[in-house]
Formats: sequence, C-alpha cells, structure tokens
Amino acid sequence: MPEAQRRAELQAAEPGERAVVILSGGPDSAVVLYLARREGYRVDALTFDYGQLAEAEIGCAKELARLAGAEWARFDLSGMKELYRGATALTDEAMGMTGEFASQLVVPFRNGIMIAIAVAYADSIGASTVLYGAQQSDAAHYPDCREGFVRAFEEAARTGTDKNIRIKAPLISLNKSRVLKLGKELGVPFKMTWSCYRGGSKHCGRCESCLNRKRAFGEAGMSDPTVYSE
Amino acid sequence: MPEAQRRAELQAAEPGERAVVILSGGPDSAVVLYLARREGYRVDALTFDYGQLAEAEIGCAKELARLAGAEWARFDLSGMKELYRGATALTDEAMGMTGEFASQLVVPFRNGIMIAIAVAYADSIGASTVLYGAQQSDAAHYPDCREGFVRAFEEAARTGTDKNIRIKAPLISLNKSRVLKLGKELGVPFKMTWSCYRGGSKHCGRCESCLNRKRAFGEAGMSDPTVYSE
Repeated sequence: MPEAQRRAELQAAEPGERAVVILSGGPDSAVVLYLARREGYRVDALTFDYGQLAEAEIGCAKELARLAGAEWARFDLSGMKELYRGATALTDEAMGMTGEFASQLVVPFRNGIMIAIAVAYADSIGASTVLYGAQQSDAAHYPDCREGFVRAFEEAARTGTDKNIRIKAPLISLNKSRVLKLGKELGVPFKMTWSCYRGGSKHCGRCESCLNRKRAFGEAGMSDPTVYSE
Repeated sequence: MPEAQRRAELQAAEPGERAVVILSGGPDSAVVLYLARREGYRVDALTFDYGQLAEAEIGCAKELARLAGAEWARFDLSGMKELYRGATALTDEAMGMTGEFASQLVVPFRNGIMIAIAVAYADSIGASTVLYGAQQSDAAHYPDCREGFVRAFEEAARTGTDKNIRIKAPLISLNKSRVLKLGKELGVPFKMTWSCYRGGSKHCGRCESCLNRKRAFGEAGMSDPTVYSE
C-alpha cells in the first residue's frame, strides 16, 4: 500500500454503514469523499454555502458527489454573513476581509459549526461517521483543524446525541502534496475541484489559494489539470 | 437570596464583559437573558429561525432583547428544513413530525448547532460566555441539555478557538416552575414570551407546550399573563 494511503486513516465500512462528508468542492474534501467511497461507506455529502461561494464551487461539489456515487445536499448558511454584517463592532480589518480575501467570510470555529450540523444529520439518518478534510497545513492557522479539537468534538457529539458518532479528519497528518498524491491513487477528478478565492468561471491563478494549488501539484510531481485565467 | 436565584449559577460579569445568549422567545431563555443582564453582562441575543417559527415568537425575542437592553440578531437556519426535506430516507414518523407537532422540526443535537454558532460569534466579538436556557425537564428528553454535554462542548469550544469561552446553562438544575419564580424576581415580562407550537397571534392553549406553560404558572403560584385563544 502506498505511503500516502497508509497515513490517511479511515477504517473500512461495515456493510451498509453510512458517513456524512463535509464537501467544499476543494481538492482536500474531494479526496475525503473518494476515500470514504473506497472504504465502502454509503456517503451523504454536505456542502455549506456561506453566501459568498462562487457558483463554480457549488457546481464542483455537486458534480464530485455525483461522480463518486454519493448523495449531495447544499446547506444554506448565509445567515452567518448577515450576522457578521450586523455586528457593528466588527471592522473589515478584524474580520480579515481585506484585499483579495474580501469575498471570504472568516468565521472562527467554522469547522465546529459545520461538524455540529453534520452530526445532527448523521444522527437523523443513522450515519456512524462524520468526515471533514482538514489537513496538516490547516492546523497552523485554524485550531478547529487539530487533533485535540477533533477528539473533543467527538466527545461533545457523543454526550449530545447519546450515540457513538465518530468524527474523522483522515488527512490531518498529510501535507497538501501528499493529499493530492492520495487523491490520484483514488481517482479523484481534480479538474472538477475548486480552490480560487475569486468568483468567475475559471481559477484566477493569482490569489493565495490558486498559488497554493499550483505549488502543491508541482511538489506532488503531478500535472495540474486546472484551467487558469492567466 | 431566594432559593431559585441561588440555584441559577452565573458568576457576575467583569466590567465590560460580554455574553452571547441564545434566545428563542420562550420563557426559559428569557429568564437567562434577564439573569445575564442582572449579573452585569453586555448581551448579544441570538434567535435561531429554523423556518418554522411563528412570527409572534420572533417578535417576542426581539422585544425581550430590547426591554432587557441587549443587542439582538436573528439567525436564519432554514437551511436545516431544506436538508431534512431533501432526506428521502426520513419519514415524518421518524422525525416525530406528527399531529400538532407537524410544524416543529425535531433536529437532534439542535443545541449543539446553536451553541457552535454562538461560540463562533462570541469569539468574533470578544464575548467570554455563551448562555442557553436548558432546564431540568429538558434533560430527560434531550442529551444536549445535560451537564455532561455542556462540559464536553466547552472543551470542544476551547480547543477549537484557542480561547476560554465558557458555556453556561444556568437553569439546568431548575424545574419549570422554579424557572418562572426566578424570572419573576428578575422582572421578566412573561407576557412577551412565546410557548405555543402552533402559528397564530395568540397561544392556542391546547398544544402540549401551552399545557406545560399553564401548569408551570400554576405550580409556581403565579398568575399567568398569557392570552390564550381558548
């Protein structure tokens, strides 16, 4: 078994076992989706829309789910944007909404929110597992992408549902290029994933997220299937 | 100090200390709101709308916040309803959506979701504390109204934000009539609170929630200010 796979921990599904995958339409969550399918889970993919997503990103998520043979639902969280807009004490600066990130709403505990909704849904449909795509480099910036948070939230889910719903971040010890290599092994159609912070129908090729994407494909020694505007 | 107050634990605020109160518009969360104000917190009240609330309930929450001198925001969670509507595997029966409860969406881990959003907001605005109105009789039905869940979620919030945001359910050891007595001491305008499961401009007086409300006022030996349809 290749190294990249061995590091992405996810136990094989029992017959009929279901998982909820938080699917942004980006490369990382796409890899998680394909990993869950490879391990035999029946998957319900959830895409959270904070009201700022490019239509392209939503479209990618929906198409990825279809290609992977998963159910797909979009969850409208645009209430988040309204809440923060209403908070007069907050400035654009405090929100980190400057420059090319202006369209991105930086919400602390964002994974906490998405996982809470995914846990509720998992409980309702009888899914055993909630999966999200935090990977190694996320941990430096976001506390809710670290192992300690995953374990603590799993306990909150257990006590708050009386069920043993597992929370898994199978990419948490992998860096970006390793995630891409794993995706390649799993047959992830990376052309159908979205990274760009800007709107539009093509990746801009210049924002930080596009630059990270290009760099990761380079480091992985893989050809980048992305069509960039420039 | 009266017994009811001694049991509702909430430490006094430091100067300028902020709290986020989850405010449904019902009597319990109204008491939490007034308790937080009495203890000196600057309060941001959040009302979550799953898309099924009576306008009356939203109006009550907004007016309660104004009367208590708190900021108020409505958070649109109607995406929840869409998600469950889309889940073809779910039947009305499995959702508990039968008879007069048909308009109520029963979402497991519902407090988990609301608290997660409140924690994110608390982190953004620099609030130290998130408060919600779980009381003693809720614990029997809802695991996310129990002390174990509160403590576990507080740990998830701490690890997921790198801040010591406290989660408090100050009514958790009080029964409904004791909550009402405490509210009376705090000057809560119960006439401005909403309990009825049905829509409309007045409480129906017949649904389970109206019957519980009537009974609690009776047990508390308080006059019930509610205008019932019958």
